[in-house]
Amino acid sequence: MSATEPLIRTRQTETKVNGISTQVVCTEFSNYIFIVLTQYGKIGTLISVTPDSRSNDIGTPMFSTKVLLGKDEPLTHVCAKNLVTFVSQEAGNRPILLGLALKDSSLEAIKHMKEIIKSCQVW
Amino acid sequence: MSATEPLIRTRQTETKVNGISTQVVCTEFSNYIFIVLTQYGKIGTLISVTPDSRSNDIGTPMFSTKVLLGKDEPLTHVCAKNLVTFVSQEAGNRPILLGLALKDSSLEAIKHMKEIIKSCQVW
Repeated sequence: MSATEPLIRTRQTETKVNGISTQVVCTEFSNYIFIVLTQYGKIGTLISVTPDSRSNDIGTPMFSTKVLLGKDEPLTHVCAKNLVTFVSQEAGNRPILLGLALKDSSLEAIKHMKEIIKSCQVW
Repeated sequence: MSATEPLIRTRQTETKVNGISTQVVCTEFSNYIFIVLTQYGKIGTLISVTPDSRSNDIGTPMFSTKVLLGKDEPLTHVCAKNLVTFVSQEAGNRPILLGLALKDSSLEAIKHMKEIIKSCQVW
């Protein structure tokens, strides 16, 4: 690590997803990856996505989601898992703290958003 | 706002407080100011600090604190209010989402940390 690189790494980008302006901020902490995905400029619903100590049949960890702030809706949990499970796996099973404020949570949009999160890799 | 300025503003710094390496990250969202103050590299205890709609006798708003993630200790609420009430007031009474991982939460350290938060003003 160079002397000028800050210890807490953060990257962000803005792009259109199905014509909607979408912003992503990713910040790495030692015990969490913090990701905000917003189409409103808001931090939105705050969800923790945590790998369970138990694994499923094929040995990959399962994930628990918990809404810490904002509206607790079933779709939020599904979107959260779908969006950031791969980040947790790539980051040595670190839990994710996710802020989610989406206008469009179609499967196609979610797929595109995963690519955007990948482009802001800090883990 | 220039074309190159990202819509989500974030600033961070690292400095010593009583000899302990201390990192601050401040990020502005439209509905929250997100601040992490860490001496462990961790996001630490996550606290929401929200101005109440009620005011006290002299018309200044009171603040509610809630631990969203991590250990819920009385000192955490006191430190959180002490550290970021001024930010909420300066940011048009926006609530604060605060990550706190302190080795030293003496009054002297807290006072210094407020100055560091000020130096990372994004609101």
